Amino acid sequence: MDPFLITSRQNQRVKQAVLLRQHKWRQRTSQFLVDGAREIARALAAGVESHRAFVCRERCQSTDAADAIALLTGNSTELLEVTPEVFEKLAYGDRNDGIVLVAAIPQRTLEDLRLAPGAFVVVVEGVEKPGNLGAILRTADAAGVDAVVIADGRTDLFNPNTIRASLGTVFGEHVFSAEGATVCAWLKREGLQILAACPTAKQTVFEIDMRGPVAVVLGNEAEGLSPIWSSSEMTSVRLPMCGIADSLNVSATAAIIFYEAYRQRNPDTNS
Amino acid sequence: MDPFLITSRQNQRVKQAVLLRQHKWRQRTSQFLVDGAREIARALAAGVESHRAFVCRERCQSTDAADAIALLTGNSTELLEVTPEVFEKLAYGDRNDGIVLVAAIPQRTLEDLRLAPGAFVVVVEGVEKPGNLGAILRTADAAGVDAVVIADGRTDLFNPNTIRASLGTVFGEHVFSAEGATVCAWLKREGLQILAACPTAKQTVFEIDMRGPVAVVLGNEAEGLSPIWSSSEMTSVRLPMCGIADSLNVSATAAIIFYEAYRQRNPDTNS
Repeated sequence: MDPFLITSRQNQRVKQAVLLRQHKWRQRTSQFLVDGAREIARALAAGVESHRAFVCRERCQSTDAADAIALLTGNSTELLEVTPEVFEKLAYGDRNDGIVLVAAIPQRTLEDLRLAPGAFVVVVEGVEKPGNLGAILRTADAAGVDAVVIADGRTDLFNPNTIRASLGTVFGEHVFSAEGATVCAWLKREGLQILAACPTAKQTVFEIDMRGPVAVVLGNEAEGLSPIWSSSEMTSVRLPMCGIADSLNVSATAAIIFYEAYRQRNPDTNS
Repeated sequence: MDPFLITSRQNQRVKQAVLLRQHKWRQRTSQFLVDGAREIARALAAGVESHRAFVCRERCQSTDAADAIALLTGNSTELLEVTPEVFEKLAYGDRNDGIVLVAAIPQRTLEDLRLAPGAFVVVVEGVEKPGNLGAILRTADAAGVDAVVIADGRTDLFNPNTIRASLGTVFGEHVFSAEGATVCAWLKREGLQILAACPTAKQTVFEIDMRGPVAVVLGNEAEGLSPIWSSSEMTSVRLPMCGIADSLNVSATAAIIFYEAYRQRNPDTNS
């Protein structure tokens, strides 16, 4: 632990870290903040490069916090001890375990991705609500999705609420960002069947065979998918709708489709 | 429209309405507030008894708002016109369409409910986050669930965030509240197979036949279900978990199970 306790909220490194709460600073510096011991452990396990961690001794009494500090010490991350008052300026939300990590935004490209035969890929376009995006990542992880591609330059994967809602699954090596046209060309090159979720589709997802190599494309609720996802090479799919509400939240739609794909692809677990 | 424009934020009826933002006042008066034209239309369509509506002429320019006002005029609801300044005190969130309705909390009991043969019922216990509860109600509506029973005296169905996340489906005549023991006895009396969602269950939901009369019981993520849902007459079910996160958000779990039941019960829509 650094013996030089930071006591000033005006400390330069503290101020620079706090700027990373803003999207534009994350973009400018390619850095972001990780809050919470479990999330930090998941970031490190996924190979995220850690720069420095701010630790508030008074606030990091949990076993999870001790484990995270041990990991950070082990990989030579700079540890800066701060007072509770300084920590308050750095922290976000209440589940922070007394540690905030400054880390490098992973620079993965689709070229790094080697798909297994018969892969199941998810593409997310225009889902900007951090809670929805995080929930989609969490469910994709649980359902064994092989890769999630965020096909939209505007979407900020490393928003603190996305990280939290994803339970740290956003750090996974299976999560990528790329422009829509690039993703579309890549999916075709890889020979995946492309299923675009669309409320007005003729076929329901239960009528589609998803046992082969397949990509499911999800858009936001209000605008739907952009035109690149409506070519004749793609199949539109929807969920059945029985009630007065004519749509589902995108994270609910995602959960249902991911697990329907799981069910089809893992027949041993079916009735 | 009432010719007596309310211009004071201290008006007694305004102050009483604002108190209904608090759970304890909703409990005490059995009244609640409905924000937004679409939600008001859905409340009225579901037979919710309307008491009075506050209307801000400057804020209710949409067609939806005009439709809602026509409905309220048609059923003789007292309409009180307020200034924008007064409306600001009454309103919640930004999607309010210039109308806030004071309505009576529906007093439905399980005894009022006549289940169709082979019904699909959902029981929700201890899910207090309004966003999750509302999302569960919205998905239950979409998946054609016959009845949703909130089996927990603490849960506040008429929180503004629950209403919003449910898209107004919370008003449906298929939504009930009752104490857990009452619900449990009722399900047994009605002869429903009881499936309790539990992450440590042996069987996955895909191994269960849900084509007959069935109730799915969901608890909150942190505490799980109370002991009354673990008797030998019930079957625990879980979702397969493939990733590093060992659980799903309860609204995602709900969506997957509801639609798996839909799929099994509507074989014509399957592949």
